[in-house]
Amino acid sequence: MRIVVLAGGIGGARFLRGLKAASPEADITVIGNTGDDIHLFGLKICPDLDTVMYTLGGGIHEEQGWGRADETFTVKEELAAYGVGPEWFGLGDRDFATHIVRTQMISAGYPLSAVTEALCARWRPGVRLLPMTDDRVETHVLIDTPEGEEDAGSKGGRKAVHFQEYWVRHRAAMPAHAVVPVGAEHAKPAPGVLDAIAESDLVLFPPSNPVVSVGTILAVPGIREAIADAGVPVVGLSPIVGGAPVRGMADKVLSAIGVESSAAAVARHYGSGLLDGWLVDTGDAAAVDEVESAGIRCRAVPLLMTDLDATAAMAREALALAEEVRA
Amino acid sequence: MRIVVLAGGIGGARFLRGLKAASPEADITVIGNTGDDIHLFGLKICPDLDTVMYTLGGGIHEEQGWGRADETFTVKEELAAYGVGPEWFGLGDRDFATHIVRTQMISAGYPLSAVTEALCARWRPGVRLLPMTDDRVETHVLIDTPEGEEDAGSKGGRKAVHFQEYWVRHRAAMPAHAVVPVGAEHAKPAPGVLDAIAESDLVLFPPSNPVVSVGTILAVPGIREAIADAGVPVVGLSPIVGGAPVRGMADKVLSAIGVESSAAAVARHYGSGLLDGWLVDTGDAAAVDEVESAGIRCRAVPLLMTDLDATAAMAREALALAEEVRA
Repeated sequence: MRIVVLAGGIGGARFLRGLKAASPEADITVIGNTGDDIHLFGLKICPDLDTVMYTLGGGIHEEQGWGRADETFTVKEELAAYGVGPEWFGLGDRDFATHIVRTQMISAGYPLSAVTEALCARWRPGVRLLPMTDDRVETHVLIDTPEGEEDAGSKGGRKAVHFQEYWVRHRAAMPAHAVVPVGAEHAKPAPGVLDAIAESDLVLFPPSNPVVSVGTILAVPGIREAIADAGVPVVGLSPIVGGAPVRGMADKVLSAIGVESSAAAVARHYGSGLLDGWLVDTGDAAAVDEVESAGIRCRAVPLLMTDLDATAAMAREALALAEEVRA
Repeated sequence: MRIVVLAGGIGGARFLRGLKAASPEADITVIGNTGDDIHLFGLKICPDLDTVMYTLGGGIHEEQGWGRADETFTVKEELAAYGVGPEWFGLGDRDFATHIVRTQMISAGYPLSAVTEALCARWRPGVRLLPMTDDRVETHVLIDTPEGEEDAGSKGGRKAVHFQEYWVRHRAAMPAHAVVPVGAEHAKPAPGVLDAIAESDLVLFPPSNPVVSVGTILAVPGIREAIADAGVPVVGLSPIVGGAPVRGMADKVLSAIGVESSAAAVARHYGSGLLDGWLVDTGDAAAVDEVESAGIRCRAVPLLMTDLDATAAMAREALALAEEVRA
């Protein structure tokens, strides 16, 4: 079975681990979000691709969910001693090596997809990991200009900041007025992306952020259309449980695009033109009828990725729902 | 007193520490060799500038003479895990931060001289540290092609390798047939270099490598002429003691340019057109007459930089010889 998964960072990576456990024989292609990629210290950093790669390759910091296990921070401390920041972005020494290799390859002319393949030659994640695009896309978030941070980029009391600045530095503490994947409209899907979708038996949306992860991938022209045209079941898992994100701050960016933080609202946001099946948490069973009335098959199952077994069970539910859709 | 010092790495840096101790009030400008700069991992590395900066700034690994104290090697180990080398070049995590800052600034358009000034803002070496040039100069060494390393660059059984490859990887284990500072003939002295020489009261050549350190600096058009024209005493200290380099493998590159490994031969190589005074080690007292007969004032004094006191004593001898020359 050929499965395509659209993945963000932590949630997508953990779900993928469950999916591999649930379906060890599956041929899995992951289309990774690159909208939260950022250039820092002259290096190209791809947080979501790396989180998938480290998680499936056994290098992830398990408790944290991102970054490397047994990490040290010597380089970052030294950069700070030079007065070079930002200090709010946690880059460890092991992680730095990944970004150094990536940046060196990109400077040598390799596209991000080739670089990602080269990095995965070490990590052997057991999936084919493709960036959504080789082109530069950067998710920006429009916020009220923080006091004292007026600059050339701020206008009318608001300014656009890089998603990482909003998410990591500000911890999404202020409202997001808009979320824009800058560059997405001119981006082309990376080599292999459209073929993988066209040749898939099934497309899954893990419980990743519907705006800045799955939404950004779908914003690359051609990807949404390819999924809708593939004629295979498309099944998603709600990242919202009981009206709040399971992890992260998805509610902050959902409100920016006018979507309520509820399992049903996210399903309706994807829409029946894209989504065939939707899993909500057992605590949100009341949402099942609402989702089904929107033309999307829905089941309520436990949706907390507390451990590998629970996550594998979620993946099995998603696969089962896909078979129901197919039948 | 305004002193200009032409410095390579370890020998130059240690001598400078002695000079500062001997003459705390002196206004010292260091013209640093950049011919052994190398690009590795997409980063610009300036070993000699950094050795001077770390040594005078209190960050040097004292026993080793290069690199940072309390160094760790996590990034390098991770790069090796990606199969990315070379492994023979010892880059520690603390050191990596310096190269990351430098590379980022250079990518942003700053010349190396401005970058060096910025890095020194942290280290406060107590001297003005200038690269010899902002242009790219790379010292290459012509060697017999090592077995199995024939490539597009090898011709007639020989190939040119970067100085660092010869020095660090091969530890100068094979003959150097030629030493060429590639790019030097088109390089311009960095801003401030010629002015510092013209306004100096004294120019010193520390016991740095006469070929690949001081020689490379002198190969930048304008620098040798400026020193000769400055009309101030030019005094050097022999890096050769008892027919062998005190440290390093200077004999290997001296033979490449047809200069004998002796204190007198190195003085004659610089020549009386450039050099006014020359210090040889007490063990080489027999060379004094030979050097003086070449028109260069010469004294035999202890030339081993065993500790700061011994090094400061050497610096005082150099300053005394300069005053003799001036008188």
